[in-house]
Parts: sequence; structure tokens; C-alpha cells
Amino acid sequence: MSPELARLSHVALETPDLESSLSFFRDAVGLEEVARDDGTVYLRAVDEFDHHSMTLTEADAAGVDHVGWQTDERESLDGFADLLEDRGIDVTWIDEGTELGHGEAIRFTTPTGHRFEFFDEMEKPDPPEERRSRLKNRPFSTVGSNPIAPQRIDHVQLWDAEATTFEEWLQDELGFHVQEYYDREDGSRWGTFLSAGGNKIEAAIIDDEEGSEPPALHHTAYRVDTANDLFAAADAMKERGIDNDGVGQHSISRGKFLYVRDPASGHRIEFNAGANVTFDPDWEPIAWEEGDLEDRQWIGQIESKERVPY
Amino acid sequence: MSPELARLSHVALETPDLESSLSFFRDAVGLEEVARDDGTVYLRAVDEFDHHSMTLTEADAAGVDHVGWQTDERESLDGFADLLEDRGIDVTWIDEGTELGHGEAIRFTTPTGHRFEFFDEMEKPDPPEERRSRLKNRPFSTVGSNPIAPQRIDHVQLWDAEATTFEEWLQDELGFHVQEYYDREDGSRWGTFLSAGGNKIEAAIIDDEEGSEPPALHHTAYRVDTANDLFAAADAMKERGIDNDGVGQHSISRGKFLYVRDPASGHRIEFNAGANVTFDPDWEPIAWEEGDLEDRQWIGQIESKERVPY
Amino acid sequence: MSPELARLSHVALETPDLESSLSFFRDAVGLEEVARDDGTVYLRAVDEFDHHSMTLTEADAAGVDHVGWQTDERESLDGFADLLEDRGIDVTWIDEGTELGHGEAIRFTTPTGHRFEFFDEMEKPDPPEERRSRLKNRPFSTVGSNPIAPQRIDHVQLWDAEATTFEEWLQDELGFHVQEYYDREDGSRWGTFLSAGGNKIEAAIIDDEEGSEPPALHHTAYRVDTANDLFAAADAMKERGIDNDGVGQHSISRGKFLYVRDPASGHRIEFNAGANVTFDPDWEPIAWEEGDLEDRQWIGQIESKERVPY
Amino acid sequence: MSPELARLSHVALETPDLESSLSFFRDAVGLEEVARDDGTVYLRAVDEFDHHSMTLTEADAAGVDHVGWQTDERESLDGFADLLEDRGIDVTWIDEGTELGHGEAIRFTTPTGHRFEFFDEMEKPDPPEERRSRLKNRPFSTVGSNPIAPQRIDHVQLWDAEATTFEEWLQDELGFHVQEYYDREDGSRWGTFLSAGGNKIEAAIIDDEEGSEPPALHHTAYRVDTANDLFAAADAMKERGIDNDGVGQHSISRGKFLYVRDPASGHRIEFNAGANVTFDPDWEPIAWEEGDLEDRQWIGQIESKERVPY
Repeated sequence: MSPELARLSHVALETPDLESSLSFFRDAVGLEEVARDDGTVYLRAVDEFDHHSMTLTEADAAGVDHVGWQTDERESLDGFADLLEDRGIDVTWIDEGTELGHGEAIRFTTPTGHRFEFFDEMEKPDPPEERRSRLKNRPFSTVGSNPIAPQRIDHVQLWDAEATTFEEWLQDELGFHVQEYYDREDGSRWGTFLSAGGNKIEAAIIDDEEGSEPPALHHTAYRVDTANDLFAAADAMKERGIDNDGVGQHSISRGKFLYVRDPASGHRIEFNAGANVTFDPDWEPIAWEEGDLEDRQWIGQIESKERVPY
Repeated sequence: MSPELARLSHVALETPDLESSLSFFRDAVGLEEVARDDGTVYLRAVDEFDHHSMTLTEADAAGVDHVGWQTDERESLDGFADLLEDRGIDVTWIDEGTELGHGEAIRFTTPTGHRFEFFDEMEKPDPPEERRSRLKNRPFSTVGSNPIAPQRIDHVQLWDAEATTFEEWLQDELGFHVQEYYDREDGSRWGTFLSAGGNKIEAAIIDDEEGSEPPALHHTAYRVDTANDLFAAADAMKERGIDNDGVGQHSISRGKFLYVRDPASGHRIEFNAGANVTFDPDWEPIAWEEGDLEDRQWIGQIESKERVPY
Repeated sequence: MSPELARLSHVALETPDLESSLSFFRDAVGLEEVARDDGTVYLRAVDEFDHHSMTLTEADAAGVDHVGWQTDERESLDGFADLLEDRGIDVTWIDEGTELGHGEAIRFTTPTGHRFEFFDEMEKPDPPEERRSRLKNRPFSTVGSNPIAPQRIDHVQLWDAEATTFEEWLQDELGFHVQEYYDREDGSRWGTFLSAGGNKIEAAIIDDEEGSEPPALHHTAYRVDTANDLFAAADAMKERGIDNDGVGQHSISRGKFLYVRDPASGHRIEFNAGANVTFDPDWEPIAWEEGDLEDRQWIGQIESKERVPY
Repeated sequence: MSPELARLSHVALETPDLESSLSFFRDAVGLEEVARDDGTVYLRAVDEFDHHSMTLTEADAAGVDHVGWQTDERESLDGFADLLEDRGIDVTWIDEGTELGHGEAIRFTTPTGHRFEFFDEMEKPDPPEERRSRLKNRPFSTVGSNPIAPQRIDHVQLWDAEATTFEEWLQDELGFHVQEYYDREDGSRWGTFLSAGGNKIEAAIIDDEEGSEPPALHHTAYRVDTANDLFAAADAMKERGIDNDGVGQHSISRGKFLYVRDPASGHRIEFNAGANVTFDPDWEPIAWEEGDLEDRQWIGQIESKERVPY
């Protein structure tokens, strides 16, 4: 049987100024600091039972160490290790505890140069007593949370000069499912929107039209509840003097968005509300063509193409 | 390999007055009429790609013909047929087209008296041209939709005098996953909240404390976007002279709710916003005990226990 | 010319436990502490430019010292003093600074036993630098505010055994305008909803059907933005272990509500969203009769009649 | 005593294609058609008790016939007529019924070329029986209303090459109150935001930086409930193939906005949520200077300067 992924787990980001980036992701955005170890800070969204969905590590420059994915079961981890080695890809085993919070893992670089990590088990530590919700199915109380704190990680958008190669490899080798895709007028692919677990877009693979750029992370999306929350988040950012990269709604996924970048690292977060979740076992990928709409965005605009290279 | 379910598909309801019930479910609630055939009307929510999630059939009295579930693949349908017959349960094969919109199916009665239907394939007809959204990933345009129209079916709540027997059978034989459960002070089980596909509560099995009652359907839940929509739906019902059974938020599932009953049949719909969806492959069932909170509802109340028997 | 009121300004509340009441009104509700002086704490809502809209003073028992109203101009203050004395009502002049934040004032007791304060000028101090919004038309930044903090005082609801006498006196002597009223089936008045400034309900005068009770304050309402905020406030209260007195929507005023009481004093706050504001110079009072609707509430219920006597 | 205005009442717009403009303002936006008479259609928002807040008349080109204002009482109408004639302005008396729904009126042209109408009384006809709300304080039921229908007229934005002359004249002669204003870096005035009744911005007077343009109307704003409604309105417009001119939040007034133009006439409507309303008798105008913020908008952008001349 083919090994399978369950879901997107986390992003491991590098920043030239850890404390400044924390003041963005923890203090301004509202992710919870879970642990610090060896120069890395672990962050978790308020509705996540899992140990973390983001790590920040100080480095010479902003970068992406890896994107982490969880397998459906332990056997799949070994299965993926075997499968990747069969394809001639170097697989590095990481001991449990090397990165806090999850079990042993494999790391590898995709043929297009994106570093991924796969693991099967992640801890689900209780929040500190004073932050614990009285609702047993909610980790953090709303009391004491940042009012704009997003709920949980939703997807990553990865840019590549060989996006088609990348998305096909994700499908063929790693078993990603295509949820939607967008073709340009000349038939070339602009973007492919894939799911690891099968229920929603977890990886958007975008063609880097400027070609020569290295593999990059355009943004990491976290889910909020409503469009009102996007305005609240934009407002809170403005009060802190942090501009945003636009508010609106994507046609693809139908997710409403607010984009904001960490001033220290340039890493961009998308606050996302209402993106499609599907439970359909026979989902047919949605095929968009340039010209279906006047714009790739249904409402509003994205005002920056900046992205952080691996 | 064990056969597997993918998700809750639809409810097949009986009403003593079809036109009156349509004026509730279609005109007041905003489900779309898809087809009529042989005394049955097929209804579909505005965000559903699938043929229908509810049928209404005129009968002597309000009742429940069956609750329909979709398998993950065709093999699972045969697998379930074999498995059920092995357990001594009568399985009736239903030809494609007997109920419009889906392929061949099996019907059977659970040991506790609930009638279920399993099938694998369902059609995804396009909406009428004038109702089609310009967004390719949304079936119906918001233009012309009822402003309170819910998005898609979410779960059913089934009552039974032998709820524990029922929920254990759903787990053991049909592979349902427990998402949450609630035990009374004396340790007896009040409710078990299960998922067919593994991502969210799709069947709530409630102990019928009045014991002698027949198996019953308490409500069918449809998802809306926000708590504001619950107020909008309550308002629209009031304008039509239809009282509601309460607005608030469940502790279990965290779903915000509005309950309203079809005046003609007594069938109850829950407008539901924000219930937990989880993509965690290692979800641990949430164990509630009486006393964890003062009430089973986090906010507000449900004001009626009426339910419709099978 | 007749003296005129401009608006409801503040409530001066007494509590048997000042620190506990502060932990409710300031920490849980999110009013800002402006000043402390001589056993009184001054509180202000986040969207108020004015010095305060509530004071809390420790006393033997919960009570209401006075309800404060602002006149349209300085001459009206003298005008009201003359007018009241003409009617044989004792008027006490209060020096500027006796109560912090406003100019000289008069205090008096209405014929039905409610203590009122009138003044003309109130200070508009800047918030502390670290709480100041970057928007010049908003006093407090959303950063650092309690996420459920209401925006500004909206109205008071006063109960009286002689409600009709009271509301007529407010109209005839003080120039209050009737926005809406509600008559029982037998023609007797249940409630009159009046405005001081003419744009919205600022004083709801309710017939105390248990007759023998002293004049009382049922609640002080503060405005929030949306129905979502009512759920957010209910949630935050539940997380703190504070039950609420119901969520829903009034028919009168159309305001959506959440009621919560300070556990220490019993003083009740209404979080209110969307109550009617009118700019119509020819507003005709809305006349409700029992039987117009099944209930006095359009949606939901109020679950307690507790009120705090003067 | 000086005559006084109570509020903005309506805009009288001209369009080259009446039916097309109706399909925008009535069918797409959701204003209710009240009456037709002599080539003019009268429109009313769903929360307005008054006869109309907009008229549409077919003409050779898009234009503005007048902006209508209601006086506080009948005497003020005569007072304004006298006052204007004293200033050498031609005043034309309009008989009751010339424009349906309101009493006799005066019309005149401001020194900057904007045509205004003043009147004192407006009818408050009941909605058609089938559209009447069961709430006595709400004219139209939500059942049957366009789901994005705005509640009531809020303000007009007028552009002028001599904006300073215009806003000073509005203050000095007509008694408008300044709520906010915005000065450029060189000290020149970009915009003044005035109130007729004293509670909120009703006329925004903007300096037409291209100088040579005739007096113009940039937009008419109608109020909706929440930011979610702005997204809903943008969505409904997109489904009809009508692009919008941006979504976001103004710094001035704090109103959240969506701008959309009638394709036939170019007349722009602003859906506005949450603009400041103040009941403060001592409101100090908010003084903005270029440089207070990076942009005149707090969130988002306005994407077009098109406006319709008188």
C-alpha cells in the first residue's frame, strides 16, 4: 500500500532577528509561545491541540528551513523513506526530540529544491493552566488570548520556477490530491492547489514567472472565523504601524484573506476565512482558465509579490 | 480490508403535508428543489455539489425513511453488504435511479431500529444556468438564493432508548469514529458524537431518557457561516411566523446553533455555525462528564425535546 | 425657552465589594479605569471620548447613587434647576470636581424616587499614550483592549411601581421624547422607552409588576458592534465562570442583547448591538400592544428579573 | 432664531438609461421602488420609514438634479428661504407633490454650483402588506428583501474646485457642523466632513484637485450592518458582473466601505458600515493632517476618482 500523508503540520522559518519576529508572530498575530530550545522558538495557534505549527530560528537571513507534514500512520513514514530513496532522493532521519514536540522524522529536498519534513506523531501538551479553556474541546481560553489570534494553520503557498514539475511530483510521488488549478491563456499552468489529506488546499504551488528565482515560500495561511476578523486583524496591525498586503477574497478556494508580513523577516502570514473544506470522496479538481474571471482574486487585491527563498 | 464510509449524505424524511413542508424547507430555509419524482421532492443546499442532501415524501405521518451515507469507494459498498449479512442483518439492494441522483445502494435497519442507506456514487448536476455561480468552485450564485440558505448538511442527531448499544455498533461494525462523548454523573452515557469520515461529528447518538420511545431523529443540521447568520435565520423565521427552539452554542462540538421545526411535520433543522472540524489523524475523543460545566450547552438553551420517530 | 438634555452620560453604582466589582466591570467587561478618588473608581468605555460613563463606589450594599445626564448647553443646567425648584423638588448643587471629570452639577430625586444628576460639561482626557489609537477619531487602540470591550454607554432600564407616573414626568418636566411604548392587553402600560437627546432610547421605564419594590435599576446597556460580539462576550464570561442572563433580540428597539450580572453587586450590564438610532425630526412613537407578537422578545429570552434598588 | 436642518434626506439623480439604472439600484443594490411618476422613479432603503431617499430620472446624460435636506421644523423652511434671498441667492418654491412624498420645498444653487432642496415634511407610507415587517419598528420584512439591501442613506460626498468656499458657506449660512477635516502638508484643505443634524457626517466636501471640473457628486453612501455585509455585497455585485471600486475602511469617520458604480450612469454607491455616530453636544472637530497616517484610508483602497457632475 502507498504511504499517505494526513495533513500539513508546520513551517520552520528562519529570521535575522528572532525577538523582532516573535514580537510579530506571537505578540501581534497572537500565536502562543510553546517552548524555546537551542535558538528555536515553537509557536502554536489557539485552536491547535498539537505542539506547534511554526518554529522561528535566528539565522543570517530570512529563510525556510522546512515545511513539516504529518503522515496518517507510522508505517507511512517508513514507506515514504523507502519510496524517496528509491527515487534517488537523500533522506535524513531526525531523532525524536531534535525538533521538540514530535517523534522521529525524515527530511529531504524535493527535486525543485523545497525542504520537507515528514513525521507521524506529535505531542498535544495542555496549555498552561491559566490559559486552558473550560471547554474540553478547545485548548486555549479566549480570555487572555490576543483578540485577533488565528485558529490554526491552513496552507502554505510555495513558488517555484518549475512549478509544474513540482506539483506533478507532489501528486505522483507523495500522493497529494489536486483540489483546484489555474491555467493561463496560453495553456500554461499558473498555479496548482493541492491537499495532503484530501479535504482542503494545503499547498498552493505557484509558477514563479520571474523564472530565475530560487524556490520560495510566499506565505503561510492561518484560519480565522469570519470576514469581520480580517478587518479586526488589519486594524490591530495598523495600530502597531504594520501595513498589510491587501484584504479581499480569492476566487480559488473562496477563502477571504488578509496578508501581513513580519517586518523583521519578510515572512508573510495570511489570515484566511471561509476557504472551502470538502468531504467529498469523489472531488473533481476545479479547472480555472484565465478569462473565467477578470482577475484571479474575486474581491480585492494582493499588493505584493515578495517571498522568502528557502 | 474493512469497508469504510466517507460521509453523511442525506436524510429521507416523510411528512403528512408535502407542500407545507416544502414551503418550510425550500422557501423558508432556502434549500434548492432539485427534482420531483413519484411523490418525492429532492432538495440540495446551496454549497453542495451533490444531487441532494434531503428528500421529502408525503406519508400518513411524519417519519424518517432512512439516513443516507456515502462510502469511500465502490468496493466498500459490497464490503458493507457482506459484513451486514454476516451479522444477520437483512440487506436490501436498491437499483440505481430508485432514488434519483445516486448509484445502486443498500438499505438496512440497525439493531436499534434506525434505517440506513449506503451507496458510493452521487451525481453532481449543474445548477440551472440562471442560478450558477460565476465562481467555478461554488454551485449556486448568491443572487437569487434565500439570504439565510445554509451551505451544506452537517450532521444528524438520533435518539434511542438503547443509545449505548447503538453507538457501539456504529463503531464496531460500521467503523464510525468517536469525536466526543458525554457521561452522566452515574457514569451512564448520555450522548456519543461520531464521525463517518473522521473529520467532524456526523451522527450524534443521544440516550432517550424516556426509554419507551421508538428510535427517532431529533434534528438534521446544516452549516451556515457565522453567528450573525443564526440571528438572520431566526429573524426570517419570525417574520414568517415560525418560532424557533433556541439559539446558542453547544459545549460539545462548539457549534453555534439555531433550531427550527417544520410546522407541518415537526422535522427539526439546526442551523449550525463553527462546529469543530479536525484533520488530526490521532484525534483523541473528548470525554465530557456531567459537572464539567453547569449545562450541556455552553451558551443559551434548546427549548424542546420533540423528535420524529422512524 | 425650555431647558434641554443632550444625552445619557453615566451611572453611579454602589457595590459591597469594590475590587470584585472592578474585576467584573474592568477586567471581564473591558471598561477602562480612568481614575480613583475617595473610594470611587471611574470607568470609561473604549469608544468614549468622555471622562467616564460609570462610577463604582463601595457601600454597605449594592445600590444606585444616581444616573447622570448631560444638558445641551450651560443655560439648560440653570433652567432645569429653576424648573425643578418650581415643582417643589429639592435641588442640590454639586461643585465641579466633587465627582471627577465634569463641571458643576445638580442632583435631585424624581417624584418616583430615582436620583438623577444633570451637568453640562465633561472633560475628554486623552487615554494613556500606550493605549491611544493611531486613528484620531478613536480614543483607545484595539491593541491592549479587552476583545469584548463594549464601545459606549447606550441606555438604562429603570423599574418603578409607578412607571406611568415616572415616564409622564420625564416627558412633561424634563422633555424626554417617547421612542416606543408597550401596552398590556388591559390597556395598562408595561414599558415606555424614552430618549433624552431625541435619537435613540436612553431610558427604558418598566412597570414593576410586583408593586411593592423600591425604585430600581434593572440594567445599564453598552453598545457593541455585531451579534458575533454578543457570542464573544458570552464566551468570555463563561470562561471566567460567570453565567449570563440570556442572549437574543428585543422586539422593542430591535437591539440584540446579552445580559450579564456582576457577581459581587448584582448590577447587570447589557451588551447591545444594533438598536435603532433615528435622525427623524418627526419620529412617531412606536405603539406596541400585547399580542402584536407572542413575546416581548423577538428572539431569545431574558432569564432573570433581578434588579438593584436605589 | 437661526433656521436649522435636521438631516440629509435624498439624492435626485439623472441617468441616460432609467431601466438599466433601476436594474442596478433596485435589483442589484436592493433599494425598494416606491412610486413612478412622470419619468421619475422613487426609491427607499429597507430601514427607512420615509417616502424615499433616492430618485432616478431619465435625462440626456448622467447628472445630479439636487441633494435634498429636511429641516427641523416648518419655520426653518421659511427661515432658510429668507436667509438665502438675503444673500442674493435665487430661491424657487416647489409645490407639495411636485416631487412625490414630501411637502412644499425650496430649491437653490449654492455659490459653488451645487443644487440643493430643503423641505420640512415627508410622508411615511407603509410598505406593501406582503413586505411589511412583523416588527412595528422596522418597515420592511427581511423576507423578500435583497439580502444585501442597505438600511438607510448615510451621506453624500461632493467634489468641488472651490471646496473651501463651499464648506465654509455650508457652515456659515446653512449651519452645518464640522465633524472632521483633513489638511494637506501645505496646509490647504483636502476635505471637510460636515453634519446637518449634528450626529454624524452627512456631507463630505472634497477639493477637486483637477480644478477645472464642474461641481460633482462622487458618491451617495448607504449604511449596512457589518463588514461581513460589505463582502456579501461585493460578492453579489461580482455575480452580476459588476466590478467594485474597492473595499476597506476610511480613517476619517472610521466607516468601512464598499464602492460600486451603476454601469449605466456611473453614479456610485458606498455601502458603509460602522461610521461614527456621536451624541456629544460638545463635539470637537477631528483635525487630520497629511502625515498622521501613511494613507487617507485606514484599510484598503478606493480605486477610482470618477464622479458625476451636476
